Amino acid sequence: MAFTEIEYHLADRVATLTLCRPERLNAFTHTMRAELIEAFDRADADDEVRAIVVTGAGRAFCAGADLGGGGGTFGHREHRVETVEGAPRDGGGTVALRIARSLKPVIAAINGPAVGVGVTMTLPMDVRLAAESARFGFVFARRGIVTEAASSWFLPRLVGIAQAMEWAATGRVFPAAEALAGRLVSRVLPDEELLPAAYALAREIADNTSAVSVAAIRRLMWSGLSASSPWEAHAADSRLMAELGGAADTVEGVTAFLEKRQADFPMKVSEDLPPGVPSWPDNPYGG
Amino acid sequence: MAFTEIEYHLADRVATLTLCRPERLNAFTHTMRAELIEAFDRADADDEVRAIVVTGAGRAFCAGADLGGGGGTFGHREHRVETVEGAPRDGGGTVALRIARSLKPVIAAINGPAVGVGVTMTLPMDVRLAAESARFGFVFARRGIVTEAASSWFLPRLVGIAQAMEWAATGRVFPAAEALAGRLVSRVLPDEELLPAAYALAREIADNTSAVSVAAIRRLMWSGLSASSPWEAHAADSRLMAELGGAADTVEGVTAFLEKRQADFPMKVSEDLPPGVPSWPDNPYGG
Amino acid sequence: MAFTEIEYHLADRVATLTLCRPERLNAFTHTMRAELIEAFDRADADDEVRAIVVTGAGRAFCAGADLGGGGGTFGHREHRVETVEGAPRDGGGTVALRIARSLKPVIAAINGPAVGVGVTMTLPMDVRLAAESARFGFVFARRGIVTEAASSWFLPRLVGIAQAMEWAATGRVFPAAEALAGRLVSRVLPDEELLPAAYALAREIADNTSAVSVAAIRRLMWSGLSASSPWEAHAADSRLMAELGGAADTVEGVTAFLEKRQADFPMKVSEDLPPGVPSWPDNPYGG
Repeated sequence: MAFTEIEYHLADRVATLTLCRPERLNAFTHTMRAELIEAFDRADADDEVRAIVVTGAGRAFCAGADLGGGGGTFGHREHRVETVEGAPRDGGGTVALRIARSLKPVIAAINGPAVGVGVTMTLPMDVRLAAESARFGFVFARRGIVTEAASSWFLPRLVGIAQAMEWAATGRVFPAAEALAGRLVSRVLPDEELLPAAYALAREIADNTSAVSVAAIRRLMWSGLSASSPWEAHAADSRLMAELGGAADTVEGVTAFLEKRQADFPMKVSEDLPPGVPSWPDNPYGG
Repeated sequence: MAFTEIEYHLADRVATLTLCRPERLNAFTHTMRAELIEAFDRADADDEVRAIVVTGAGRAFCAGADLGGGGGTFGHREHRVETVEGAPRDGGGTVALRIARSLKPVIAAINGPAVGVGVTMTLPMDVRLAAESARFGFVFARRGIVTEAASSWFLPRLVGIAQAMEWAATGRVFPAAEALAGRLVSRVLPDEELLPAAYALAREIADNTSAVSVAAIRRLMWSGLSASSPWEAHAADSRLMAELGGAADTVEGVTAFLEKRQADFPMKVSEDLPPGVPSWPDNPYGG
Repeated sequence: MAFTEIEYHLADRVATLTLCRPERLNAFTHTMRAELIEAFDRADADDEVRAIVVTGAGRAFCAGADLGGGGGTFGHREHRVETVEGAPRDGGGTVALRIARSLKPVIAAINGPAVGVGVTMTLPMDVRLAAESARFGFVFARRGIVTEAASSWFLPRLVGIAQAMEWAATGRVFPAAEALAGRLVSRVLPDEELLPAAYALAREIADNTSAVSVAAIRRLMWSGLSASSPWEAHAADSRLMAELGGAADTVEGVTAFLEKRQADFPMKVSEDLPPGVPSWPDNPYGG
């Protein structure tokens, strides 16, 4: 599959996904939706990919749903490409849920406006870094629709319900500083330092850790956020600690630490993921 | 129903509920409890109400349960006006759960002491603004009772379990600055700027957004906070996006945005709420 | 039971548990695991204990699992002392879940490095205070294992999933200032002020509150964090408010407040805990 509205670039064990419709401020379309899901599938299947950076081409990150359809944009049937027991599925949600299940850590490098689905798609990414020129808006109430992409689950867990409601009920567009104060992003950087910071974080992961550990931890942590009690988490990590206890990566990790050298982990996500890794959670809708 | 212990005032599409027993620092009574629930019912039913501001008359917000009954206050049967499968119900909880289900966004303008149920009743409000002279106390452990009004659910989700436990285990009374540092309130303002700030936020909502969107979002977000997984949120917002996709508010919202003008949303909460809006969640106790 | 790898000291109604293998930076062993669980059992059963402070002997808090077993450390069978329906249980998790169920509030006084299980064991404590010389690391991915001790449940609820994933995916060791900025700890103190601050907080609880209230609140709050909706919390605190409404501590608490004097609460956790106190939650694994 050749991509037309995103770019997929792999270098130094980091895959960069670039939203790439700069003439439309990278507005979200059905094609972009499908390509993003395909790109995350590709990254998960490729052991060369240790982390994923998502950014936008040109001056925007993503201006939201493409409103080229005018007032009928959200009534167009082509936006509802899948069904849940016969009901339409929100397109942004299919991307968000795919990202949530990623086996590789995902870093958003938000280089400019991230509005509507342009910001909600980043919520299931692990870390959000913002350029000083980034701005944000959960503008749904100003368009007559609702917070989508499962953001009613992700957003209050990320920033607290008070901040989530203030942004969602006003639909206000706000600058990077407000995003930082409200803990939507982890750091705000001068524009030219944004991608270097994202890659530095990706390399900190790639250079020091077991890919299998990181994949298992990512699923554990996100599923832990929806687990009904810590005993559920305890059952999952007890199983994984037993499965990994004598495994090659664990022996190498401990040995390298004791020998005060860099570890060289032999295991691969594509082949060696232990069976106890949560599928987080099974999607009852089959996706 | 005429109110005797609160005031209900509607102006500029914002309802103000004022706790009004200033000679008792607006201490909470059975009457106030019933009037608050009635006031939220009234606001939900009135399409003129786009947001709700809750504040206190005089120098306090609410000093907590009225202790005029002395040592027997919490043993008085009249405080337990409803039953849950035959068991008494905590009065503060009935108010908190009613506020949680509000279809209109709720802003607490905390003008002075907010102690006991005086602070726990604000937790299901969307945004808490505090005057510099406000102070707070989860004083229950100093009175021999427990954190009530479902605050064991709301408080750790608002401020984190470590901050929640520090405040609840010490029962300490603390100033607005500590409330801000601990993220219990969003902003601290000079006393005379408190109500103007609350009204500015209310008008930001009223002037720019679809009332139906905001009602649906409020229910989505609060129910999302208790949803067992993001797939549950995805099912809910997929349904709402489909129901609202071709609706009049959505067409107007998108068209107005493209025409760079203020939107004039035609839909009404009282008549046009889509069936997919969560009831968040059904109260198993019938209230 | 005499302790060999921890110390248990009771003074002024505060129990201090000191991890005590200073020659090994208090590294975690099977013996330490068992002694910690025993110590929490002892503290819960002793009405003289109103709060618990956990700290480390010497210059470390706890350097993590003792890696004296070399590369096979996590493959040693003796680390899996209990089974969950026939499967091994993670040892750190058995400690974490015991702490979570404590009837007494728990304050971590983190005096030095807290790495691996050395930091995850503190997550179910109520408040974490750090010395300036403390440092932290969720280093599991650098050893080829996973975040254990049910930390995939606790950590994202304490610091947010973005911060949790950044620390867990990099496995980075970080200083106290980063822990404070990321809200892993409540305060950072000069080394010599750490224990005094921990004891001051413990005494603020012991001097002012009902022990029964604090025990009930601790279980309410932690179980509230895993409750599926606020209605569940409402049912629990309605029951407790009714059980405590006319109880001796409540009468004394309210009376003392009205008489502007220190309360002298007569009830005991060992004898007077109301039946409505949640067991938070029933451990399906029998522990």
